[in-house]
Amino acid sequence: MQLDQANQDQLRQWQTELSADYQALQQQALNLDLTRGKPSAEQLSLSDALDGILAGNYLASDGTDTRNYGGLDGLTEAKQLGADVLQVSTDEILVGGNSSLTLMYQTVLAAQQFGFGEQAPAWKSEGKVKFLCPVPGYDRHFSICEQLDIEMVNVNMTPTGPDMDQVEAMIKADSSIKGIWCVPRFSNPTGVVYSDETVERIAQLGKIASGNFRVMWDNAYAVHSLDSSAPQLSSLMAACHKYDTVDSVMQFASTSKITHAGAGVAFVASSKANLAAFKKILGISTIGPDKVNQLRHMRLLPNIDALSGHMQKHAAIVKPRFDCVLRNLEADFANSELGTWEKPVGGYFISFDTRPGCAQRVVQLAAEAGVKLTPAGATFPYGKDPADRNIRLAPTVPSVNEVEQAMKVFAVCVKLASVEAQLKA
Amino acid sequence: MQLDQANQDQLRQWQTELSADYQALQQQALNLDLTRGKPSAEQLSLSDALDGILAGNYLASDGTDTRNYGGLDGLTEAKQLGADVLQVSTDEILVGGNSSLTLMYQTVLAAQQFGFGEQAPAWKSEGKVKFLCPVPGYDRHFSICEQLDIEMVNVNMTPTGPDMDQVEAMIKADSSIKGIWCVPRFSNPTGVVYSDETVERIAQLGKIASGNFRVMWDNAYAVHSLDSSAPQLSSLMAACHKYDTVDSVMQFASTSKITHAGAGVAFVASSKANLAAFKKILGISTIGPDKVNQLRHMRLLPNIDALSGHMQKHAAIVKPRFDCVLRNLEADFANSELGTWEKPVGGYFISFDTRPGCAQRVVQLAAEAGVKLTPAGATFPYGKDPADRNIRLAPTVPSVNEVEQAMKVFAVCVKLASVEAQLKA
Repeated sequence: MQLDQANQDQLRQWQTELSADYQALQQQALNLDLTRGKPSAEQLSLSDALDGILAGNYLASDGTDTRNYGGLDGLTEAKQLGADVLQVSTDEILVGGNSSLTLMYQTVLAAQQFGFGEQAPAWKSEGKVKFLCPVPGYDRHFSICEQLDIEMVNVNMTPTGPDMDQVEAMIKADSSIKGIWCVPRFSNPTGVVYSDETVERIAQLGKIASGNFRVMWDNAYAVHSLDSSAPQLSSLMAACHKYDTVDSVMQFASTSKITHAGAGVAFVASSKANLAAFKKILGISTIGPDKVNQLRHMRLLPNIDALSGHMQKHAAIVKPRFDCVLRNLEADFANSELGTWEKPVGGYFISFDTRPGCAQRVVQLAAEAGVKLTPAGATFPYGKDPADRNIRLAPTVPSVNEVEQAMKVFAVCVKLASVEAQLKA
Repeated sequence: MQLDQANQDQLRQWQTELSADYQALQQQALNLDLTRGKPSAEQLSLSDALDGILAGNYLASDGTDTRNYGGLDGLTEAKQLGADVLQVSTDEILVGGNSSLTLMYQTVLAAQQFGFGEQAPAWKSEGKVKFLCPVPGYDRHFSICEQLDIEMVNVNMTPTGPDMDQVEAMIKADSSIKGIWCVPRFSNPTGVVYSDETVERIAQLGKIASGNFRVMWDNAYAVHSLDSSAPQLSSLMAACHKYDTVDSVMQFASTSKITHAGAGVAFVASSKANLAAFKKILGISTIGPDKVNQLRHMRLLPNIDALSGHMQKHAAIVKPRFDCVLRNLEADFANSELGTWEKPVGGYFISFDTRPGCAQRVVQLAAEAGVKLTPAGATFPYGKDPADRNIRLAPTVPSVNEVEQAMKVFAVCVKLASVEAQLKA
């Protein structure tokens, strides 16, 4: 279909044909769900040895009785694993409770209300605060900003990460910009991995931004590659040490998509100064994280090699689903004007950009044909996709057959919505 | 020793004798610690069956797969247990992560920054905020207020709870008072249980206070009685329903001193309206609590009867330590002018009031004789005990023999410090 060259008659004919296809699909009374970026039961079962793995031995390697209070920054051995995942040293990491989202929230809240020491006064002391949000992005990052009254400013994502020319220019022009959200490897939702150049430029933002600017580096999919061809992410901390900007970055990761979602261990990495300030603030609201659960995780995944082996088992489950989505998109939309997408080799999402003004309609059509998609706009601050184009596909939970069925529906919905939009144009 | 009747010569003679006793004790080179209110290893071992208790079955009673995301308010069966502990109904409770302190912090923060709905605007919109703090009290409550810039106002504790005449008068006189900290059963540190009358009057504070006033009811020792003679606490929620003040109270509890400290499950109970508002706020910083750990707890302690049986095992370990402290205090200070104390039948602390101006000196003397006590002043806001009298004794971790040794040292330190103070008077 070459929509831009088609006349009204041709468009109407396509509409009629596609509507027939669509109605046929509706007859199937499907009930499929591509909305949630969460592990499937099969993936979760990979970690079922967690419960009982201590075999009565609750002592950490340094003799700490994990059953009692204390240890705000986590077990030594858990720090080592987190440091390896985030490519930092063991004195640049804190191991928390079950949620990296919580650590991110606490970080933003701490920066806003209390500051991170003399060089980083509380944002609230400086009036209006803004955050750069590469779009499309992760809705829960945006919700944190909304709740804490931080104004969000869109920045374009590119296949190598955020548009860094735009990022640098904005920060230079506006000192009220105090942060940027990044998902640097297998970005949510586009799946891109930040290039080495992007990482280098992110590391240098601390040189042009104010002392209380913070890069929020949510490395949620740090180890979630689907095969060995997946691009590596270079070490942000190493680059920050080179440019003397270690205080400008807070990094996050968790085991939620490694072991059991919501029942795992979360990490925050940053400079020693930032972590010291953070611990002082954090120590008011908690005596410490669940160290027993940290120990369980260390018995299951004692080192980065064990972790890598474990992640290969996840990949074996997830990859066929990704392949299915990408195969369908390729078959339906290669060399078409109807949409664009990246080809992620990891993470949890594939993101599809329709022609402008079609995303909401596609999601609606799919829903009415029994295929639930993430609401259009959810990947943008305030739920507003200015071009109404982006749709996030999350294929991990359904079976491959279900993904296949859902993608057939998706293709017809995209085509039909595109024709409809062109008819109105 | 009748210090007030003694002349200087008599006092000096006592000082000489007590100094000799003290030096003899110093020769023992003791290394004892009565500072931390935490369970002993023997107590922790009562719950070692937790790890492995799921036996591969991660499904909650309603079929929820606890290994995946979701369930902000916790498992149904965990709600039932928490509701029984806090004497509320199951739609008046939320089950959280590993820390009731965190839930308390989040509650105060939410009330301050966001409010709890139309009837309860954010405290920050009304300027200066104050909290009533019954003293002596729990230092971590005070730290939350200090971090969040809430001014603390002392209220006297009595053997039946806070001085309610004082509390009511203060609230009537000052609308900037937005809360009160309460540890209603086996209060930290005095060990008293709030009387039925006190509970009734607390429930009526919502009638005289502003709509965003909140009682912070930290029922940390709700089920921690040492024998069947322990006074019961009447249900605050029942009283609030009677007076139509359910929104004025937030209640807290956790399993930290039931199973493994810092690796358990925390509860918050309040009105349905408060919980709905709280969940909306909480849902921004977390996807949900660790439901796997909630399920483990429910398998170990499936109902309130199982919980009560479990607590009797704790009591068998803790009671000899409490008895030892109380026996020594009785032997050394009964009918003396040197100090007063309550006789708790539960909780984690015994609190001793010296003559005015002696507590710091007692703690110093004890430390120099190898017995670590909680710093004097720690039980008061800003670390300042106006009369310098209160000392918190926490006997759960040392053995009974160690408690016995420590109390011998304590007695000599109290007597010596008292004589020293009288000599200076």
